[in-house]
Amino acid sequence: MIDRRPLQKFTYGMYIVSAKDGDRMNGQLSNTVFQVASEPPIISVCVNRQNVTHGMIARSGRFSVSILDITAPMELISVFGFRHGGEYDKFNAVPYRMLVSGAPIVTLHTNGFVEARVMASVEAATHTVFLGEVVDSGVFNEEASMTYEHYRRVLKGFTPKSAPTFSPAHAWAKEPVAVSGPPSSQEA
Amino acid sequence: MIDRRPLQKFTYGMYIVSAKDGDRMNGQLSNTVFQVASEPPIISVCVNRQNVTHGMIARSGRFSVSILDITAPMELISVFGFRHGGEYDKFNAVPYRMLVSGAPIVTLHTNGFVEARVMASVEAATHTVFLGEVVDSGVFNEEASMTYEHYRRVLKGFTPKSAPTFSPAHAWAKEPVAVSGPPSSQEA
Repeated sequence: MIDRRPLQKFTYGMYIVSAKDGDRMNGQLSNTVFQVASEPPIISVCVNRQNVTHGMIARSGRFSVSILDITAPMELISVFGFRHGGEYDKFNAVPYRMLVSGAPIVTLHTNGFVEARVMASVEAATHTVFLGEVVDSGVFNEEASMTYEHYRRVLKGFTPKSAPTFSPAHAWAKEPVAVSGPPSSQEA
Repeated sequence: MIDRRPLQKFTYGMYIVSAKDGDRMNGQLSNTVFQVASEPPIISVCVNRQNVTHGMIARSGRFSVSILDITAPMELISVFGFRHGGEYDKFNAVPYRMLVSGAPIVTLHTNGFVEARVMASVEAATHTVFLGEVVDSGVFNEEASMTYEHYRRVLKGFTPKSAPTFSPAHAWAKEPVAVSGPPSSQEA
C-alpha cells in the first residue's frame, strides 16, 4: 500500500535554481538539489517539465543553484516559488549577479552558489532530473542553510502542485504568503 | 573556480538504502534520497557503483529506503555506513522486516520506509542515480527525521570516500566511531 506520509519525512534544503536562455532568465524555488559525485563534483536538480526554468536549462545546458540561508524571508521565497516566470521578471525584484557562463544567482539571503553544465538528464512522469558537472561555485557567508522543514514549520510555507514533493493531503492547506493572483500564477 | 565549500551547505537526510538479490541482501547508509514526482510518487537514490548494494539494486530492480530518525545511534549508523556488505551480514546485526517484493527495511530507530521499483537510472562518474516508482511505504512513528547536519555536527560522523558528498578537505578528519578494521572495510 502506498502511504504518502513517509515521503513527507525526507529532508531537503531550499534553493533557487536559475538559468538563462538568450536574453531571458528565470529562477524557481527548489528543494530537490543534491550532490551526485565528488570526483568530479556533479550535482543534480529536479524540475517540473512545465516550468519556464526547465526549458531554459534544457536549451542552454546550464543551471545555477543559489543556496537560501536561514534569514531568507517569505517575500523573497514567494518571488521564486509562487510567481510564473512567463509573466513576471523575477530577477527585477532581487539583487543578483551573472555568472561568467550566463546563469544568474541571487546574492541576498543566500550563503553560496553552484553553477553546473548539464551532462545528463532523465525524465520521470512530470519532472526531469538534470545532472550537471560543477563549473563554478562560491561561498557568500557562514549563515546556516535554510531547510525545507524550517520553510514548512516556521515560515508556514506551502508546497505548490508543481513541486516534486506535492502531497494532495497536505498542500494548499496554507495559502501562499505575500502573493496575490489566480492559482495559475502560483506555479513557478 | 570550483570551491567545494558551498557543496557542504546542501541539506540532506539520513537513510538506509537496501536491496535483495537472490538469497543475499544488503543495505548502505545514504544521504541522497529525494522525491522526484508526486503523480505517480517517484523517488530517487544515488549509489556508488562500487558498492554491494548498487549491484543488488541493478539486478533486482527494487530498492527500499529506511528513514533514520533522530534517535539513531552511531552503532546502528556504523553498521550500514562503515562495514563492507561483501564481508559482513549487516541485517544480522539489526531488527528488520522483509517487504513483500523482497527488499528489507530496518525497523529500529527509523520513522518510516519507502520501497520502489526501478524505472530509470542515469550514471554520473562514480555514481548511479536510480529513479523508482513507489510500490510500498509506511510510517513507524512520529520521531523527527535525522538530518545529515545532525550526523556531522552532533554525532561527529564522517563521510566516507565512496559517498557522493565526500570532500577531500573535510573527510577522514574524524575516524569512524565504533568500527574497527582496515580502511577498505569502511566503504559500504
